[in-house]
Amino acid sequence: MSGSVEGRRPVIEALRARVPIKRILISEGVRADRAIEEILERAASAGITVQRRPARELDQIGGSRAHQGVVALASPFEYASLASVIASVGDSDRALLVALDHVTDAGNLGAVARSAEAAGASAIVIEKRRSASVGPGAIKSSAGALAHIPVASVVNLARTLATLKEAGFWVIGASEKADADFWDSPLDGRVVLVLGAEGTGLSRLVTEACDALVRLPMRGAVGSLNVAQTATVLAYEWVRRGHGG
Amino acid sequence: MSGSVEGRRPVIEALRARVPIKRILISEGVRADRAIEEILERAASAGITVQRRPARELDQIGGSRAHQGVVALASPFEYASLASVIASVGDSDRALLVALDHVTDAGNLGAVARSAEAAGASAIVIEKRRSASVGPGAIKSSAGALAHIPVASVVNLARTLATLKEAGFWVIGASEKADADFWDSPLDGRVVLVLGAEGTGLSRLVTEACDALVRLPMRGAVGSLNVAQTATVLAYEWVRRGHGG
Repeated sequence: MSGSVEGRRPVIEALRARVPIKRILISEGVRADRAIEEILERAASAGITVQRRPARELDQIGGSRAHQGVVALASPFEYASLASVIASVGDSDRALLVALDHVTDAGNLGAVARSAEAAGASAIVIEKRRSASVGPGAIKSSAGALAHIPVASVVNLARTLATLKEAGFWVIGASEKADADFWDSPLDGRVVLVLGAEGTGLSRLVTEACDALVRLPMRGAVGSLNVAQTATVLAYEWVRRGHGG
Repeated sequence: MSGSVEGRRPVIEALRARVPIKRILISEGVRADRAIEEILERAASAGITVQRRPARELDQIGGSRAHQGVVALASPFEYASLASVIASVGDSDRALLVALDHVTDAGNLGAVARSAEAAGASAIVIEKRRSASVGPGAIKSSAGALAHIPVASVVNLARTLATLKEAGFWVIGASEKADADFWDSPLDGRVVLVLGAEGTGLSRLVTEACDALVRLPMRGAVGSLNVAQTATVLAYEWVRRGHGG
């Protein structure tokens, strides 16, 4: 379950990373070791309710028995609507949105959010299905950024890109097959930067919805970057352009 | 131990990622399940010796009992000498080296290597002590790049930077405290890009050894990138400069 964190170490890490947690369940009869004490202390200072429950209840919630007597239930993430994202940008002549086309790895989603937030992006756009959603994993890997950058979860990304074009955004897809290197691309002004999953890249419909495709040239023998590395370079190219760099 | 991989799943992942492995040890009496079968098949096709050993021998090698009956011993990584790195660059008027100042996380070392290799860097420079070394963890997170980019492991990074300056390199440190944004920096030609660990940043002596400090402006509320994200943006800024971008 993406909505729960199981096990002593993972729960401690989630508390340290300030993953929003609704409740923590601890098995009845579990012995209070150092890890449990840290969990109780951090929960108390964050105002999180801790409840004692029979072990079999924890087994059911977690879906596994790897919980070691501790399960944290994450608060549901509040997604933004596409309309509110567009409204928040207003008629600003510079704005960056970062859209992910079926990125299924929560760690990558979090890492992209971290870079996008640092670069001053206005929001992240993800697809509801066949994509990583915002849960404890993504929040941890975002190093806190997902508490600050809105995420819109949409039913159909290609259609959303069409809507964003109508709202005056330039849609730029990152693709290894692009002809233009990123420094020759129109990565400036009101931009939606679209990235696909590692390996599969952008889907056909999303590629067709792009105004331009750009690539990062690969100079080495291996020649690939992960989606978060690509997103970071392109987001900072957008930052650079905005400052006459 | 950074030189061994323990547990069925980690050993399978290391084999899939082609981490160089010297030998695989399997506990006597361990039952051959699917994971063990996959390990035996992959080891056979890669020509890796598999040996049956008493469980207590595996306990000792791994330093823990989390090995589940399987331990893989990694081949030692062959570091490059600084002299060979300098020689390989020759008198080329463009070359990039990426130096890490006490980056202790192996995943970050691997991610930096992946980006550096993709950007066409000539080598990575790390310090021998208090730093992540090249082991299975770094190799996996480099997505194969560490098989292609030389890594020099040096005793004293500040002194090494002085040597590289004498060899005609411009030494540029990434620092949040820098005054210059990366697009205004001399990130062109023969460059050593120096990055510190997340949180601590560059040490004082390394900072003093830099010709220039540059930063990535932080536009968000959280405002931090990890060392691999920063390395990727700066390495690609160097790529961009080389192409009149």
